This record gives sequence, C-alpha cells and structure tokens, in this order.
Amino acid sequence: MAVELKYGMVGGGPGAFIGDAHRKAIAVDGKAKLTAGCFSRNYEKTVACGADLGISKERCYADYKEMAQAEAQREDAIDFVVVVTPNASHYEICKAFLEAGIHVVCDKPVTVELKQAEELERIAKEKSLLFMVTYTYTGHVTAKQARAMIQKGEIGEVRTVLTEYPQGWLAFEDDWGGKQGEWRCDPRQTGRSNALGDVGTHVENMIATMTGLKIKRVLAKMDVVVPGRVLDDNDFVMVEYDNGASGMYWASQIAIGCDNSLRVRIYGSKGTILWFQEDSEKLIYIDADSMIHELHRGYAQIDPSAAKYGRLPSGHTEGWLEAMGNLYSSYVDCIVTMGKGEFDVSMIDFPTVSAGVEGLKFVEACLESSEKGNIWVDIAD
Amino acid sequence: MAVELKYGMVGGGPGAFIGDAHRKAIAVDGKAKLTAGCFSRNYEKTVACGADLGISKERCYADYKEMAQAEAQREDAIDFVVVVTPNASHYEICKAFLEAGIHVVCDKPVTVELKQAEELERIAKEKSLLFMVTYTYTGHVTAKQARAMIQKGEIGEVRTVLTEYPQGWLAFEDDWGGKQGEWRCDPRQTGRSNALGDVGTHVENMIATMTGLKIKRVLAKMDVVVPGRVLDDNDFVMVEYDNGASGMYWASQIAIGCDNSLRVRIYGSKGTILWFQEDSEKLIYIDADSMIHELHRGYAQIDPSAAKYGRLPSGHTEGWLEAMGNLYSSYVDCIVTMGKGEFDVSMIDFPTVSAGVEGLKFVEACLESSEKGNIWVDIAD
Amino acid sequence: MAVELKYGMVGGGPGAFIGDAHRKAIAVDGKAKLTAGCFSRNYEKTVACGADLGISKERCYADYKEMAQAEAQREDAIDFVVVVTPNASHYEICKAFLEAGIHVVCDKPVTVELKQAEELERIAKEKSLLFMVTYTYTGHVTAKQARAMIQKGEIGEVRTVLTEYPQGWLAFEDDWGGKQGEWRCDPRQTGRSNALGDVGTHVENMIATMTGLKIKRVLAKMDVVVPGRVLDDNDFVMVEYDNGASGMYWASQIAIGCDNSLRVRIYGSKGTILWFQEDSEKLIYIDADSMIHELHRGYAQIDPSAAKYGRLPSGHTEGWLEAMGNLYSSYVDCIVTMGKGEFDVSMIDFPTVSAGVEGLKFVEACLESSEKGNIWVDIAD
Amino acid sequence: MAVELKYGMVGGGPGAFIGDAHRKAIAVDGKAKLTAGCFSRNYEKTVACGADLGISKERCYADYKEMAQAEAQREDAIDFVVVVTPNASHYEICKAFLEAGIHVVCDKPVTVELKQAEELERIAKEKSLLFMVTYTYTGHVTAKQARAMIQKGEIGEVRTVLTEYPQGWLAFEDDWGGKQGEWRCDPRQTGRSNALGDVGTHVENMIATMTGLKIKRVLAKMDVVVPGRVLDDNDFVMVEYDNGASGMYWASQIAIGCDNSLRVRIYGSKGTILWFQEDSEKLIYIDADSMIHELHRGYAQIDPSAAKYGRLPSGHTEGWLEAMGNLYSSYVDCIVTMGKGEFDVSMIDFPTVSAGVEGLKFVEACLESSEKGNIWVDIAD
Repeated sequence: MAVELKYGMVGGGPGAFIGDAHRKAIAVDGKAKLTAGCFSRNYEKTVACGADLGISKERCYADYKEMAQAEAQREDAIDFVVVVTPNASHYEICKAFLEAGIHVVCDKPVTVELKQAEELERIAKEKSLLFMVTYTYTGHVTAKQARAMIQKGEIGEVRTVLTEYPQGWLAFEDDWGGKQGEWRCDPRQTGRSNALGDVGTHVENMIATMTGLKIKRVLAKMDVVVPGRVLDDNDFVMVEYDNGASGMYWASQIAIGCDNSLRVRIYGSKGTILWFQEDSEKLIYIDADSMIHELHRGYAQIDPSAAKYGRLPSGHTEGWLEAMGNLYSSYVDCIVTMGKGEFDVSMIDFPTVSAGVEGLKFVEACLESSEKGNIWVDIAD
Repeated sequence: MAVELKYGMVGGGPGAFIGDAHRKAIAVDGKAKLTAGCFSRNYEKTVACGADLGISKERCYADYKEMAQAEAQREDAIDFVVVVTPNASHYEICKAFLEAGIHVVCDKPVTVELKQAEELERIAKEKSLLFMVTYTYTGHVTAKQARAMIQKGEIGEVRTVLTEYPQGWLAFEDDWGGKQGEWRCDPRQTGRSNALGDVGTHVENMIATMTGLKIKRVLAKMDVVVPGRVLDDNDFVMVEYDNGASGMYWASQIAIGCDNSLRVRIYGSKGTILWFQEDSEKLIYIDADSMIHELHRGYAQIDPSAAKYGRLPSGHTEGWLEAMGNLYSSYVDCIVTMGKGEFDVSMIDFPTVSAGVEGLKFVEACLESSEKGNIWVDIAD
Repeated sequence: MAVELKYGMVGGGPGAFIGDAHRKAIAVDGKAKLTAGCFSRNYEKTVACGADLGISKERCYADYKEMAQAEAQREDAIDFVVVVTPNASHYEICKAFLEAGIHVVCDKPVTVELKQAEELERIAKEKSLLFMVTYTYTGHVTAKQARAMIQKGEIGEVRTVLTEYPQGWLAFEDDWGGKQGEWRCDPRQTGRSNALGDVGTHVENMIATMTGLKIKRVLAKMDVVVPGRVLDDNDFVMVEYDNGASGMYWASQIAIGCDNSLRVRIYGSKGTILWFQEDSEKLIYIDADSMIHELHRGYAQIDPSAAKYGRLPSGHTEGWLEAMGNLYSSYVDCIVTMGKGEFDVSMIDFPTVSAGVEGLKFVEACLESSEKGNIWVDIAD
Repeated sequence: MAVELKYGMVGGGPGAFIGDAHRKAIAVDGKAKLTAGCFSRNYEKTVACGADLGISKERCYADYKEMAQAEAQREDAIDFVVVVTPNASHYEICKAFLEAGIHVVCDKPVTVELKQAEELERIAKEKSLLFMVTYTYTGHVTAKQARAMIQKGEIGEVRTVLTEYPQGWLAFEDDWGGKQGEWRCDPRQTGRSNALGDVGTHVENMIATMTGLKIKRVLAKMDVVVPGRVLDDNDFVMVEYDNGASGMYWASQIAIGCDNSLRVRIYGSKGTILWFQEDSEKLIYIDADSMIHELHRGYAQIDPSAAKYGRLPSGHTEGWLEAMGNLYSSYVDCIVTMGKGEFDVSMIDFPTVSAGVEGLKFVEACLESSEKGNIWVDIAD
C-alpha cells in the first residue's frame, strides 16, 4: 500500500458522484495520492473542496489550463490527472494535460466526437503518455478471467454474443432521474446519443476486451420511448464481428426493475461464458457437455493474470470501487515502470484512449444505421 | 377426472417422443380416452402399438384417410384426432379429418406453408370445428397469469419485449442431435427454417398470447452457424408491434448450456413481467418502484382465469405435461360444451389454427427479411 | 404405455386432494388402470365417484373389508390397492388387503403407531406382498442421482447433513389452513406430532434414501409456536448417524414464504450434494476444488439407474406427479415381474413399508427427546 | 472525504491479511489517516512497513506499550488505535491503549476469555472511550435495513431463526488452509474454540444486532470432524431467546463449496427476512401473503438509518471493504462528535466491546453445553 504517485483531478467537486468514486477507488489501494485539483469552475468552491481533501491551497487551481501548465513546471508535479468533468469538456481538458506532458485518465466517453478522440490518441502516442479511459467493469477479476479463458480457447471459436445493459431509472415520463437524468437527456450536454453512448459503449468495450473480436458492421434500432424525450433510451444493435460471429446488444434506460444490469453471454463452439456485473464475484463457464461451472474470484482455478488483482478471500465481496481500483492499479504500475525505463506496452492492463476511439466509432455507426432506417453500416478501421 | 371424450391419434408410434407426450398430457386429467389410431405408416406396427395402448384392432387403421372416413361413420366415433406426424404431412392429415367433420389437434407448426394453414383455418371455420395447435408453454398457469396482468394494465403500456428461446443441442459439428436433429436440419422434412420455425415460433406465439400485440414488421438475421448445415440455427429478429413498441427475439440451437430456455421479459410503462419456462412455477412482476414480486402458481394473488388450471398446492411442482394438459383441458371442455349447444368462442383458452397461421406469417416474413439482407418486412394481415 | 395392471383405491373421493393426485400420477404412464374402489364411507358417494371414474357399479364397494374379500375372489381381481384415507385408518385397511393377499400402496405415514407399522411389515413379508409407502420426493430422477453419486463415493464419506422442510401455510393464528389444516392440528386425527410427522419424516426418509446411513440417536426440540395449537409446528432435530456423521433437520409449518421447501445439503469428505425439491430438475454437486456443477435431469452424466425414469428431454420440466409416477413405475414393474416368477428384491426402487417403520421410529424417538427436555434418545433397531 | 482523524495500528505487517483490509476499509472514505504504527514484533519490519505506508520513522514503534505512552503524550496524538494482532494478544494491547486514554478498535474476537473482555468493557466505560469490535457484516446497508424493519415490526414477533456460517476451507485432512489455518486449529493461539469462535460468533452478533433479542440459553453440539484436529470445525447450536423464540445456528469450516456463507433467515408472525452475506446488495422480505420482495441497497424503500451509508447507486456493487468502512464511518463520527462535546450514546452505530463480551458469553456457554453432553446452558447476564 505504498504511495507511489501523485495525481490531480479536474472536476469532482461537491455533489459530483463520479469524481468522488474515482478518489475512493484510488484510495482503496493507496498507490497514488491526490495533491492538486481544479474541482469546480468556481475557484472558491475548488479551494474549499481542496481543503476538505487535504490539498494545499497553492495547488488548488482556478482553471484547468493554469493547472496543467503550473503542475508541469513543478518538481513535485502530479504524475497524472483524472478528468471527471461533463463529457463535452473532456476533449479540451485532456488535450491541455497531454500537451503539458502529463499522463491522463478520463472518464468514459473520452470525447463526444470521434475526431476529437482520434486526436487525443495521436497526441498521447506521440508524447508516449499513458491515457486511460475508465471502462470500470473490465477491471473485475472475473471479467479478466473471462478474457483469459477465451484467449486460451476454452470456449472454442466465438459464435454468437448476447450482451445487454439495461437500466430502469429513466423509465418515467414524470421523473427524469434528477439532475443527472436531465443532462443525459439533453443533446447539448450529452451529444447525439444517450442510452447507447452511456451504457451501450460499456457493452461494446466489454465484448471487445473479453473476446478480442473487432466489430465489422452494425445494424441499430435506436428508439426514443418516453414521451417528450429527444435522445435514444432503448436501443437494439445487431453486430457482425471480423471472425464472422454475430452479436446482439441491448442498451436501455427504461427497463423497470433493472438497476445496472450489464450481462454478458458469449457462446462458442466448445462452451459458453456468462458474466453478470451485479454478481461479479462469479463467472459461469459451461463446457461442451453442458456442465455448468461456477468460478468465484479467489478460486485456485482463476488465471494468474486475473487473480493478482484480488484483495480479499473468496466470499469476502469486492465490488465496483475495487474494479475501478484494479484499473488504477495497473495504470499506476505502468507509470512507475515507465519512470524506471522498464515499461513495455504488453504491461498495459487497462482500457486506453484507443478503446475510447473504438467506442465513438461504434456509436457513430449506430447513429448512421438508425437514421438511415436500420441498415448495415461498416465500422471505420 | 370423468372420461368425457374419445380421441384418435395419427403418428406417435414406438420411438416417437411427441406422440407419447401428448398421450401422457391427456392422461393426467383423464378427460379423454384414446380409442383409435394410425400410429405408423406400417400397419403391423400400428396394430402392435394399438394393442399396447389398449385399443381394439378394428380401430387400428392402415391409413389416415381410411381412419377419418371410418371413424366419421361410427356411432361411437372419436370426438377429436391428435396429429403428431412429421411437419410436412400435417396439412393433408388435418384436412382429411376436418372434411370428415372431426375436431383436430395438431402439433406445431400446423403446416409448412402459410397457404396451407390458411386453408385449414378456413375449413375449420366453415365446419365449426375446433382446431388446436399445441403451443404447449402458453398452457402454464403462470403464463396465463402474465396475460391476465398485462390485460388488466398492471405493467401499463408495453414498451419493449426481450424474448429468447435458446437451446444447445445442435451446437456440434460432429453430433447433429440424433434422428431428430437430422430431420430438423433437412429442408425436405422441416421446411425453409429450422431454429426459427421450431423454437422462434414459440417466442412469437407466447408474446402474442401474453400481450395481445400484433407484429407490424420484422427485421431478421437468420444465420447458419455450424459448418455443413443449410438451415438457420441462430436467429435474431427485431420486431415492431402495432402499438409502436419494439421487440428483440432470439432463437438458437447452438447456445451451449441452454436446454430449452424460453425466457420472456416484457417491459411496460408501469412495470415489468419476467417469465422463464424452465422455472415456470413462478412469475416475476416488478412494479414502478422497482420492487420485485415473485408470484407462485397457487398463490391467492393468481387470477382465477389462470388459477383454475392448477392441480397441486404451491411448491408441489407442475411441469411440461401439466401445461399441455391445461390446453387439452380447455379443448375438451369446449367440445363437450359445443355438444350441449352451449359453446361460445370466448370459452376458447387454447391456441387455435389461427395462432398457427400467425406463426407461419412470422416465419415467412423473417425468411424474406433475411434473404434480402436484413431489411424490414411487413407481416401480412 | 401398455396397461399392465388393475388397481383399486380406498379413499380419494370428491374433494380429497391426495387420492386424485395418486390417480393422476399413475395415469401419466398408464401402466395400471383403476378398476375398483371404496372412495367414501358413504356408498352413494362411492358409486357416483366410481361412475365419474369409469368404474362399473359392481366394483364400487360400501366397505373396504367387503372390497378386500370380494376382489380377492375375482378372477380379474385388482393387482394392488391404493390407500389414501386419513392416517388413523391406514392400519386397519392395509391389514385387510394384505390378509386378502393383495399388494398395497399406502400414503405416508403408513400408520400412527410404530407397532402397527411393524405388524404390517411382518404380514407383508410373510405373504410376500409388495407394500409401497409413497414418500413421493424420492421418486425424482435427481434424487436418485444423488443416491447413485453418494453410493459411488463421489462426495467421499458423509460428514454432516443439513436438511429442512419448511412450509408457511400454518403460520397464522387466525387461519389454520382450512380443512386440511384443522385435522392436521388435531391430535385425534393426526397422532402425537404434526410438523415432524408430516414433513419431518420426508426429511428422515430422503436422507436415509440418498445416503444409506442409519440414524443412531436424535435430540429434538419440538415447539408449538402458534397460540392455541397443541401439536408441534416448528421442530429442530440434531441427529447422529451410524458412521459418526452429524445432521440437523428442521421441519416447520410456520415459515412464512416457504411453500414446500424440502432442501437437502449433504457434505462429504470429498464433495457436496445440494438438492431442492422445488427445483428438482437440477442437482448441484460441488467437487473438492469447490467447483459447482449443475446436473440437469436428462444430461448424459446422469446415472442409468436414475436416468431411466425420465420421460421428457432436459428443459421440458417434470414435477411432482411425475416423481410419484416414478415410484408407481417401479412398483408395477415389480408386481408384473413377480407374476412371471422373475422377481428379485434388488429390483425394488420405491419406499417400502420398512421405510414407513423407520419413519415412525424416528418420530417416536423425537417425541421422547422433546418431552424429556431435549436429551439424546436412541433409535430402536 | 475530509480527513478528520489520525489513527495508529498494532499488527498488520507484511503478509497479514486483516490489517491491510482495515487500512483499505478506512481509506475508502478517507475520514482517518494512518500516522503511527507497531506493525510487527520486529522493529525493522515495522519501520520498513511504516515507510511503505508513508509514516514518519519517529512514529514507528518497537513495542505497543511504548507506542501507547508516546502517542498519548503527543499533541498530534493518534485519535484511535486499530488492533489487528493474533487473538491471544488483544487483551493486553487494548488495555494498554485504553489506559493511555486512546480510543480502541479491535478485531473480533475481542479477547480469548470472557473475564478479559469484561475488564476491557469496564475500563472503556470508566474512561468514556469508544471501543469498537469489528463484526464487519453488520456494517452492510442491507443488514441495517433488516434491523430497521424488524424494529418497526414489519415481520411481527420473531418466532424462529435459522442462521448459518459455513465455510469449506478447512475440509481437508491434508490441507489445513495454510498459515492461517494452522493457527486457527491450534488451541494455544486460538483459544478453546475454532469454528464457533471464528464464524459462529458472527452469527450470534448478527442476530442480536438485527433482532435485538437476547439469548437465554444454548444447547450446542461442537464436533471435530477432520481427523487429527483438536478444535471444533462443525457446530450446531440450538438457541432460546428471551421472547420465547427458538433459533438454530450452524458454524462450519468443512462445508465444501461454501466460501463465506453467512446466511440469515428470520421468521416472524407477520413475515420473513432473508439476508445473505455473499449477496449483500439485496435483502429479501416476504410478507404475510407470501409475496417475496427484493430490496436493493439504494432503493427508495431503504430506511434512512441504513441508506445513509451507501456510496454508489444501486447496481454499482459495494462489498466487504465498504461494509467495514461503514463501521469506521460511524466510529469516526462519534469520536469527532465527542471531541465537540456533542456525543450521545444513541449515535453509536457500530459493534462495541459489549458485543464482544456477548460473543464470549455465547462461546463459553456453548463449550460447557458441548462438554457436558449437549445440555441446555444458560447465558450469563
């Protein structure tokens, strides 16, 4: 639990859920310490928040640009920044820190337009900076175990994928889910897609992570169900992968009774993998004889590449914060190793800006498909 | 348990699964007694089988046409015939019995072509004969309860439907599921669709039964996954209903680990209904406050229209045979009532030949959609 | 489905649940046909019921003694009788048929006193008659699979057993579960124990069947929970088996939310078996590596001694009636084989009167333990 | 997430699971900061560990006594100490810090003998110090919800309690669970009970917490199952509460397939509560109509006294660390409030040393019962 790095945060002021969640997730393992921040557009709020968080006033900044420049010049500069502002501002902020030579973590979606994400990807590459996009659920030990088993061929060739991410919190005409619901349903703040962009991209990323397959083309039906809304709240996407397999994705915010039900089902020629985010201490594997095996995080059968992230014995539940903590754990290790000149890209075990780029390609292709009457649209290379 | 009617059977000789299943399902309640049959194309086998089943030799027939005519002329004629032959022969056999004035039960699918089904529907109507098509799963008390709750508006307006029927028995290149697998994969015996026709039609019928919605159009992706096969074994269908709701159906025979997993999820504006065939003693209802309620067959909350079919107290499980028995129970009651001149169509609580017609319309539209590159195809009125 | 035997019934008139359930369970396989009966103490009701059930009037009897004697003398006599009267009358009726040389099936508990059961056991043995006591749940394919796996040593030596049978239907002070509840709570009709005698004996029998272990001694706490009641409605029993293993049984009728929740957990030195009556299409087996395997009725892994009883493919659910039907299936086969002079006791695959005797020993020892302040009481040999 | 307090730790050096777990649990909310420690009996190890954890060398102590005295005299003294050494040393260490006037957190069990615990309880009371014993599972939001519902009478009067805590990690004769297993099976290090003391006390405490009932007497059967072992590894305890209700507890370390399966079932006169540690984001409540309701952490129906501890929306799982974090959250709040002179005992929402005393009374009574042949033994007042 040695503190190895210093980090800053842009966004995450009082009342913001996701910034606090990132701080807690990092705190679990304590490998990095918050030492600078621009938590709000309001400087006084930033200073008050910084005081609460134990940050010296001189490292509370009025402006993210000032922060990027000032920190870059300090001897005890932050090692990385965590960007947890509303989606539309991600691009400018991330760019500023990358240009200042600081590693970046950005909440998903990395940007609201594909071109922006591609530009960030290019800059990070040129500058050899580590850029993580926090697709939290890929951090689960059991999700990594699914990836390991599929890579080792335990379910044979992937044939068909059924994956869904339904939520129910935006099901009601007279209750749009409070402040968060309001901005998510507002195209000016959220971009051109709501449900697909928000939860559908988790589906896309999780399947890419677990299977290694690339999507060749999509056919999407993006519906606006609740009267008065303008952005999609219930989406079906048919998918074709590069290996010829098919997939069906469902993203929804109107499925009453679903909290946050990311559920993965991957059927191969020799077996099946089932994984459910709300029950993420388990992975179900079904072999060719239809025997159902239930693997728990912490069992001896878990692959070392996944098992190493566990903190507690089986049956002592780990959850969402720990999954995000696993992403940060690898991220910090990579930065530390890079500092020692020992870094190698094969060490990366977190979603990078490239995953963010793929997510935007997916959403843009789906939008095109849906707007053109649900036709097949190729995913750009 | 009074025996009220006599029935005959065409098909269902030794080794045939479904004929025996129908006999067992009818026997549970004992309202009808098997008294005639043409169990095989081979007369000697028919006679041997008849002897086993306690049928007099004079009512064991060499030929279904002979049987229809001979029975129609007897004073103690059979009241209805059960047709459980391979799909391609259903049309001719059903027609012969209808023309002889005998009520007909036919296993699903009623015919292999839409026109044939429409013709049978027309004849049955003209002759005022009762024609049941055994979509077995609609017989479950809990399925009827779902129907009752949706009719009463307990989940509000239906918004989106996710329903699937995956099986895994045809997943393997080197094991095509024995004899049954072989004929199901053979277009000459099974028609133009395998998975969609076999299990996909159960999805179509169950949703029609539970929700009362009509499908306006479909967009289908019917895939042949296992090498060497020519008929579909994994199908996705996007659906639009007449009320504007959307649906996603999945039918598969290559989903390793799935036995017979018809699973219904219906999301409405005020709540959600979940029903799973393999756990059919329960119905899950989720209300607008996201409270999950689990209703068991036999509970006081079950609607009388559903509860009346239960035979055993809650926790004393009923299954597939009892579900089919429920269909026969209503069917026999209707015939008996018709004999007394008291019949009314509102008494019908079983799937009729019209449900079979709808199933064929659905399959034919999906085939057209899939062949034309996954475009929307309207369902014929 | 050849009808092979004729049977009679004592009890099971209109309104009686269990008699009708036996008739349905026998009808599923159709190996025996109801041909005589004394369905009520009221002769007119017996005749009316017989007419309903298709029995000739001459074989509707006013009295069970008359029935036993008359049937014994007929050339076309019934092969066995099914006794489904209230518990207190079992002894006299079973005895009459045994003495008339007729095989007997009796609902559980076989008698209300141990001595009576022992006498019936002795007579049946002397006369070489087959006497089945219908512990229905042992008929499930998955229960037989548990037995086969334990016999083969797949869980090693049995170490501890946790088994329970809670129900909730008698939980309420102001609702004693209708007519059935009333007689069950009445010591004159039900004997000295209610919950333990009714559902606790299923626990005792199921564990004896699955494990083959004998109980050496018991320590019971039998409580009367609902005010106004005199017989036990919530019981805990500590058990020691002859191999040194321990067990804990729970029987209850006041566990709100439990329908009929017989649940078996058997922990051995090499693995664990879990079986749940309300989900009896599955058996859970956990191996020494903590891998959880889910076996479904119908899977290739099911032992032939269990698999042979299945009627439908996996995923086409069988239930309570089919489980009881399995007991009758073996019972009829044994009688038929005995008629051919080929019978061997190793063919018996149903609970006999000896299981009934064991049940009464168990209840009597528990009553003694509870009455003496929850001390250990040996089970008589 | 303002850091409000400073804490020290005794024990928790490299390789120790539980010390690290406490640090992570505290770090989640960041309300207290580790600033002093005696992590090992070996001073060099303590210093190395302290360096890793960011503690200045002057606050790394060779000895717990030195630490207690030195810290007590500092102006920036630690506010509380966390004791995570092996059980047998808890008493001396806790006593030293209490006498130095420092608040204490001690891992469960608080001591190995009842008298020691009672002495610590007395000192803490005299000195008005807050003493928490970390029965972690009571920290779950859903466990607090169960407590709130029972207090409000939603299940009526508690009638019978079935609660168990089986594990399987010590099931094997040739694998005693590594180092931790070895000391747990060694009476010199672990005291007179293994399974009951370790996991059985969690059962005792959880039921006391949820129901508020006191145990009047116990009847225990404590078995040593695995050959070669001397301490209990499988225990049954019958319980009688002060309101006349009965309970059955099971504690085990030989139940293959069980990870950490604390499972609570509380049956009342008007309903039932089910809670399972491994699925602790949910609480099952069954009402008098047998309707099963599933409450999720984060739902609007959750009582404010429980809901306030949640950090993430429903479906974003919290786990074991967060549950322990909840205990620390209340503990820190109480100390802070006490510092402001505003403390009131009604604010305590964590298990105190008195809970530890109750646990030792329970274990000692069970040991006496088991040694005397499984007789009833009263719990001391």
